[in-house]
Amino acid sequence: MSEQIRRSEFEIIAQVLAPLSRGADLAFDLTDDAALIEPRPGQCVVVTADALVAGVHFPYDEAADLIARKALRVNLSDLAAMGADPLAYFMTIAVPPDIDDAWIELFAKGLAQDQTEFAVTLAGGDIVSTPNELVLSITMLGSVTSDAVIRRNGAQVGDRVYVSGTIGDAALGLFTLNGVLNITDAGELIERYSVPQPRLALGAALRGSVHSGIDVSDGLVADLLHICEMSDVAAVIRAESIPLSEAARTVLQQAPELLTSILSGGDDYELLFTASADFDPTAIEGGVALSEIGEVVRGEGVTVIGADGEPMVLDRGGFRHR
Amino acid sequence: MSEQIRRSEFEIIAQVLAPLSRGADLAFDLTDDAALIEPRPGQCVVVTADALVAGVHFPYDEAADLIARKALRVNLSDLAAMGADPLAYFMTIAVPPDIDDAWIELFAKGLAQDQTEFAVTLAGGDIVSTPNELVLSITMLGSVTSDAVIRRNGAQVGDRVYVSGTIGDAALGLFTLNGVLNITDAGELIERYSVPQPRLALGAALRGSVHSGIDVSDGLVADLLHICEMSDVAAVIRAESIPLSEAARTVLQQAPELLTSILSGGDDYELLFTASADFDPTAIEGGVALSEIGEVVRGEGVTVIGADGEPMVLDRGGFRHR
Repeated sequence: MSEQIRRSEFEIIAQVLAPLSRGADLAFDLTDDAALIEPRPGQCVVVTADALVAGVHFPYDEAADLIARKALRVNLSDLAAMGADPLAYFMTIAVPPDIDDAWIELFAKGLAQDQTEFAVTLAGGDIVSTPNELVLSITMLGSVTSDAVIRRNGAQVGDRVYVSGTIGDAALGLFTLNGVLNITDAGELIERYSVPQPRLALGAALRGSVHSGIDVSDGLVADLLHICEMSDVAAVIRAESIPLSEAARTVLQQAPELLTSILSGGDDYELLFTASADFDPTAIEGGVALSEIGEVVRGEGVTVIGADGEPMVLDRGGFRHR
Repeated sequence: MSEQIRRSEFEIIAQVLAPLSRGADLAFDLTDDAALIEPRPGQCVVVTADALVAGVHFPYDEAADLIARKALRVNLSDLAAMGADPLAYFMTIAVPPDIDDAWIELFAKGLAQDQTEFAVTLAGGDIVSTPNELVLSITMLGSVTSDAVIRRNGAQVGDRVYVSGTIGDAALGLFTLNGVLNITDAGELIERYSVPQPRLALGAALRGSVHSGIDVSDGLVADLLHICEMSDVAAVIRAESIPLSEAARTVLQQAPELLTSILSGGDDYELLFTASADFDPTAIEGGVALSEIGEVVRGEGVTVIGADGEPMVLDRGGFRHR
């Protein structure tokens, strides 16, 4: 039991983390064992949890504020996918010995920045020491009326499949970070991987208008497969309809074989959803472009129609969770 | 990104963890991004989070079911301290490469055992791979009416200080595990450390009858100091009134200097609370003995009156968080 690190655990909570919970009456300034959450009348609480490990979910040398912001954003994206508004989050951190005060300060600065941007507050948690690498776990609570929640299991045959923003940027950004790809001007792609944009406004705008939804964290095809499996349907999407950024389009012109990486790469945190044929995407004010990429059909699995018109049937064996 | 481990993440969720959430409609069988929690009318949601690291909070070679049960129980104890009833928990696990299916099965068996014992259910979470040691993070939700919640900041001058069960067993158990102490028949002490008993029935019975409360996780004096600091009071306790098990009493007869370890050792997970002088502990049916150990006075800090009648003033510097 490391007396030194545990001593500073109190100081970290009091000096660095407690200010992040001020104004949130529910957190008792992080001085109690637990926080109280009272949902507004008619609302239920949606809870999501994600863990991030150094060297697995972010580079070992990633800036502390970017680690903090990514951790918040992947959880915010889960709330967005369900159409929920953020309420508060609980964070546990396993802190390795080489983490110093400057790192903690920068980490807290990143949390503060995104708390302001996404109207969410720290409400509790735990700091423990580890002899190994940093592990960060966030459990985030949101609120939504129970009849408006967007789930994975509501896709219906005849639905159109939509996705927001552009797909594949985060995977190309990660390849660049890992040195697998050498892309000039990859800054935008790397930022998509490092600081994803949770589509909260879109999720809120889609409440009540769509049949099913998920965020693209495992990869476009893998996540669509989640919807299909839960809804007992299949889907056909057109590779040519998948929205690409200028940067991704340029990469793909030089290396067409990377289409597979775009279909299977995760971490985009765009929203993927299905809605009936009369759904009007232009009526949705979600702050991001929507693209129709295919439709829901009877059967199993996800079929991608290539640029050559040839279908590729992809199952879990082909497009695994990353 | 380890394809192999991530592939089995799905299998672990579907085959091992999903059964732990069956019957809990809120978890959607762990197939959605988040779970829905609807508190009963008049109830609010209490949330607590604790992380455990292999080699820090449990021995590297601890049995998987005992790790699972301890992780649940430290969180259940936080709910007990606030007078809340358990609802559901969210778990993230960072899994090292050497964890195999047998380990996972035993881990899930431990969770299942304590889910039954404490009427709580898995509602969601995340499994990620780590190249390092196991890190387990649990966020647990409970419910309590907001006017009945037990907090740290309600102690009043003139209150009596009570503690449940016996104190110091877990610290002596840990010393034995670590080889610092050589105690014969230490099984009971080690079990107090490995599988603590959350005092949920007591917490529920104390609702509305006490002024402040906390669970003994940092140590008797350190946790009483938390109450004093949050309540702006001081406390005087008598060393001779601190309830000891037969095993601890025997150890102390041979090594009286271990009293300090009993005062400052944590992990007992008994409830420590203050109540007015007319509080009747015999009227509380909490399934565990209650001992009056001192009282709340004006001032700062915690004073322990030794067997010789001499006071020792202990502050954070003297009795640190372990």
